[in-house]
Amino acid sequence: MSEHDAILFANAAFYAAFSAHDARAMENVWAARKPVSCIHPGRTAITGRDAVMRSWQAILGNPEVVRITPHAEKVHMQGDMAFVTCVEQVVIASGPQFLVATNIFVKTGAIWTMVHHHAGPAEVDPRSVQNPRKPPLN
Amino acid sequence: MSEHDAILFANAAFYAAFSAHDARAMENVWAARKPVSCIHPGRTAITGRDAVMRSWQAILGNPEVVRITPHAEKVHMQGDMAFVTCVEQVVIASGPQFLVATNIFVKTGAIWTMVHHHAGPAEVDPRSVQNPRKPPLN
Repeated sequence: MSEHDAILFANAAFYAAFSAHDARAMENVWAARKPVSCIHPGRTAITGRDAVMRSWQAILGNPEVVRITPHAEKVHMQGDMAFVTCVEQVVIASGPQFLVATNIFVKTGAIWTMVHHHAGPAEVDPRSVQNPRKPPLN
Repeated sequence: MSEHDAILFANAAFYAAFSAHDARAMENVWAARKPVSCIHPGRTAITGRDAVMRSWQAILGNPEVVRITPHAEKVHMQGDMAFVTCVEQVVIASGPQFLVATNIFVKTGAIWTMVHHHAGPAEVDPRSVQNPRKPPLN
């Protein structure tokens, strides 16, 4: 697997954990020994693994979010750090919504793990995500 | 200057260029030989230096934005890549507004240059930015 694909894989693993409401998988997605931070839509930054994980436990416990899939992923790599921009299609009971995200990863050994997630509302043409690819983990 | 301070300096240079409506300074803030991308509030990602710079020329040409200052900056460094999260206080004619941002930098030689900017709306307690520090470039 190329580094590019390994980073996309890590990005997909994040959305798979999110969609599965799997707090344990979400913990594994995030770096365990690097400083982490997270900006949820409309909020300011949360810093520190404990606080970030508590925020995910609250979000993953919300049954309203049915599924979230990444689209239009773009990978940027610089040494042992990389970031991915993507559109997030969030399927909730009332229909799909779109967000835009920046996800930052670091490489530890052979594994890319998340150190930062920033998502916020975006105007997205739904036709641009009409044929979503399945994330590789599903 | 420590690496931490050099990254804060690069972050402040971005907001100084923005506040000064200085397109030339903004070009110097951004990496010239690395892939760059930018997510403006409510929009999807723009990729490529030419497209990103065109977007800034349009924004800097808008006289409505009087000043933008960073607050609550947090620096995360990993080798030659770093990111900063911060609250942006945007002063426009009708009063201040707040955004939250993720700014990513890479080190080229001794200089940290921006490779990604992501800003979006955020609920911010104005009291948390009552006593803004001046960015070091001013």
